Amino acid sequence: MPEASPSSEEQDARHAAKMRKKQAARDTILASKTREQGLLIVHTGKGKGKTSAALGMVVRAIGHGMKVGVVQFVKGAMHTGEKAVFEAFPQQVTFQPMGQGFTWNTQDRSADIAAARTAWEEVKRLIADPDIAMVVADELNIVLRYDYLPLDEVLAVLTARPEMKHVIVTGRNAPEALIEAADLVTEMTLVKHPFRAGVKAQPGIEF
Amino acid sequence: MPEASPSSEEQDARHAAKMRKKQAARDTILASKTREQGLLIVHTGKGKGKTSAALGMVVRAIGHGMKVGVVQFVKGAMHTGEKAVFEAFPQQVTFQPMGQGFTWNTQDRSADIAAARTAWEEVKRLIADPDIAMVVADELNIVLRYDYLPLDEVLAVLTARPEMKHVIVTGRNAPEALIEAADLVTEMTLVKHPFRAGVKAQPGIEF
Repeated sequence: MPEASPSSEEQDARHAAKMRKKQAARDTILASKTREQGLLIVHTGKGKGKTSAALGMVVRAIGHGMKVGVVQFVKGAMHTGEKAVFEAFPQQVTFQPMGQGFTWNTQDRSADIAAARTAWEEVKRLIADPDIAMVVADELNIVLRYDYLPLDEVLAVLTARPEMKHVIVTGRNAPEALIEAADLVTEMTLVKHPFRAGVKAQPGIEF
Repeated sequence: MPEASPSSEEQDARHAAKMRKKQAARDTILASKTREQGLLIVHTGKGKGKTSAALGMVVRAIGHGMKVGVVQFVKGAMHTGEKAVFEAFPQQVTFQPMGQGFTWNTQDRSADIAAARTAWEEVKRLIADPDIAMVVADELNIVLRYDYLPLDEVLAVLTARPEMKHVIVTGRNAPEALIEAADLVTEMTLVKHPFRAGVKAQPGIEF
């Protein structure tokens, strides 16, 4: 005779026991995490979602009443959907699309360097401002990749930030030294992209 | 005599030429992308940013005047910062934290399955609603992983969605068949996590 398959009640009981064990393990881990500190967060990789994930964290921070500063290093020339939303929270978000657009649009290295410097000075100001809880330096990695800003200077400012300040740096090709200095690093890996199938960039998704 | 290093003007000219070439290549690529279509997007992987990146896309969509429906499958019991922000756009966002919390909190498989079903029915309703441009099924992958919903049924609904409807599915361990069916798949890879250094989950970052 074949073995009887477990009843639904048995399945449920087994599941409950397994989940109790998982929860106990999780509680133990959480109990050991007691420190709060400002995090240096890096979103890098060739996949999508680097800027989107930073924007999602901005939304969360706004929801918790925190003040946030967003500086976009290379997207200033593009229309962005997020701007309209952040403008609904003028007391909480400063949003500075200071870049002059992607570098292959300007074709002017000196102007790009000057724009990067202006954006970086704004990031420094936001990091120093005690009212600001979170600073997003969007696409800063691109600027570093082109050597538009001295990496040493950027690292010195980021690592010497006030203790409770969160800073999120996005862009592909994050420098190794930045990854080394960061607390939380996520690499967005491209698994599949609709561009390959002839689909164009669309509002709500890419911008 | 050593070779003279290029002047700043020469560097700029070389850079401009290189960037012109890049832009031309990019223009050619963009010209071939003419199709608009609703995308099935998957954010998976063990790294952070899966839900955050979906929220960032919601923000963009709101900024473009689109209507969005967000259904959270397993986070209903948690306080979320994003809720407060989306409530500022009641005409554009429906936000449904329908899940009963992570499964290791409930320890009740039958209740979890019922909650998953309720959330899924809401996703189906949003996909069928012609006013809704984007639907987020947050942590649906977790529910599929536990077999709380039949994968076949979920795939059938997602692939038969209206042509211009964007659907974003998040959660680690996305089923292979879902990745196969998707248009845009990003894997968030964990490079470094502050939990390892004893830092606890913090508002604005994790919730």
